[in-house]
Amino acid sequence: MKTSVTEMLGIKYPIVQGGMQWVGRTGLVAAVSNAGGLGILTALTQPSPQDLREEIQKTKCLTKNPFGVNLTILPTRNPVPYDEYIDVIIESGIKVIETAGRSPAPFLPKLKAAGVKVIHKATSLKHCLSAEKAGVDIVSVDGFECAGHPGETDIPGLVLLARAAEELTIPFIASGGFANGRGLVAALALGAAGINMGTRFVVTQEAPVHENIKQFIVDSDETDTVLIFRTLRNTGRVLRNPVSEEVIEIENRPGKTDFADIAHLVVGARGREGLETGDINKGLIWAGLVTGLIHDIPTCEELISRMMAEAHSVIKEQLSALSC
Amino acid sequence: MKTSVTEMLGIKYPIVQGGMQWVGRTGLVAAVSNAGGLGILTALTQPSPQDLREEIQKTKCLTKNPFGVNLTILPTRNPVPYDEYIDVIIESGIKVIETAGRSPAPFLPKLKAAGVKVIHKATSLKHCLSAEKAGVDIVSVDGFECAGHPGETDIPGLVLLARAAEELTIPFIASGGFANGRGLVAALALGAAGINMGTRFVVTQEAPVHENIKQFIVDSDETDTVLIFRTLRNTGRVLRNPVSEEVIEIENRPGKTDFADIAHLVVGARGREGLETGDINKGLIWAGLVTGLIHDIPTCEELISRMMAEAHSVIKEQLSALSC
Repeated sequence: MKTSVTEMLGIKYPIVQGGMQWVGRTGLVAAVSNAGGLGILTALTQPSPQDLREEIQKTKCLTKNPFGVNLTILPTRNPVPYDEYIDVIIESGIKVIETAGRSPAPFLPKLKAAGVKVIHKATSLKHCLSAEKAGVDIVSVDGFECAGHPGETDIPGLVLLARAAEELTIPFIASGGFANGRGLVAALALGAAGINMGTRFVVTQEAPVHENIKQFIVDSDETDTVLIFRTLRNTGRVLRNPVSEEVIEIENRPGKTDFADIAHLVVGARGREGLETGDINKGLIWAGLVTGLIHDIPTCEELISRMMAEAHSVIKEQLSALSC
Repeated sequence: MKTSVTEMLGIKYPIVQGGMQWVGRTGLVAAVSNAGGLGILTALTQPSPQDLREEIQKTKCLTKNPFGVNLTILPTRNPVPYDEYIDVIIESGIKVIETAGRSPAPFLPKLKAAGVKVIHKATSLKHCLSAEKAGVDIVSVDGFECAGHPGETDIPGLVLLARAAEELTIPFIASGGFANGRGLVAALALGAAGINMGTRFVVTQEAPVHENIKQFIVDSDETDTVLIFRTLRNTGRVLRNPVSEEVIEIENRPGKTDFADIAHLVVGARGREGLETGDINKGLIWAGLVTGLIHDIPTCEELISRMMAEAHSVIKEQLSALSC
């Protein structure tokens, strides 16, 4: 299936595996790219730019297909050497970067000069438009459904994507709430040139995530996520577990939430502890509403193949028959 | 465009105008049905069953096409003679009823015996499934995007519709967030057999709504709605105006919200005052996130025609080309 995004990124299917801290590692990324999608390594999962360089080399040994690197630019306690990560990405010959958090504008001249295509994640139309203006190549339009950080405006994909189609002139991919072929076609109908999936790729054979966590997501449904850090204006969507429930309890106390009150709960906030130990009661488990649509733990190849088969069937058999 | 829903309801296009208090009156309803959709009168907009009988007769003079009646079953201070409204609906030869609020189960035997098809609105998969089990004919699956009462689970259409497609065996229509042909095709791709629109039909020439309110919706975007009555567990989505902001201010005060504290603001909660006087600062103005996708005030005929043209174009030109 050729779209403006598959052409620009040199991939077979319009399916991108979004950057995920602790999850976007070699094995998963190579599996997604080998299956015809775009795998994306997460730069800051690697403790240093040099480690990222090695991770990229390892991935190149596992796939000949294009893959990308995610760089999430957020305020941090300790300064992150973003420029050095960018240099490694460029020097390693990576041709796609996914940026998130803050505007990628400061890095765009260097990336453009190196021929790197930039996908920027945005959760509101305003941020989509400023990314376009800054000069990114593709916007990843991230609806309220998404895992991680849905922003503070709570606009789901059905409306946000339709708005993006009205306003953006560059291609965009749809993010948040996608797990199957029906969703892919819905995104294309709304004007997207592909989709981004995160949680769905967490629950694959190749994801470097403990089996217990994968099974916990399979067993959860669309009503089992909660929004945390809303009082800090840094909303996150995670699965309901004792840690997220305690965060919410503290946030619901009268008065302004002090980050110090929840900091001890947020050790492992990126979910590393649970992902690695398999203890579903430890750390935060980042997952989107799409949890309700995840019922098995396929390989990436199985997942992408059946999504594409379903998408073609929806277009050719169901929709075309309605439009005779 | 023929779907299971157009066949069941005897309409030309899979577009239903959802029940709206004070808005679902003769002129709008006839215009929607004449344009090939299904117009729906709102029973409780009429002060008595006898008034509804007259409203139905008036509508019959204006359209030969099928139209329906909405009956919203909610707890009220003064008892509502639901059975009498139902009798009028049946005796008037109406063949489609839209129910909302509580389960329509008590009325189903009478409606079924009279050959009336029942569309029931539900905002969660749980309620979709209980409606199916109760024996309704069609579920109107109402996402978090919707105007009015989105429920308390906040599941947007992208996920809720895909879940409905997995679980329901009866046909369903998609509600909340729809205003154009792209959205219609997305709903069909997700497995719906049509769409329901409310806010979009408020902003048509024929809607019995003051021009100022229509223009206010045109001028608003997807970030201009707010959720009220959340603390009462009776969440409503309305436009931001001084009345809704005062409700939220009261709800944000520490402690449990007392309905008495906001009751004086809720006079005209159904929006009647603003709808009729055109004062956008008076009363609550119910509108969905789809506000962002509403840019003009067409006739119902213009609206439905261009939506169908866009839908066919998306299917035939865009999607089919992707699936060669």
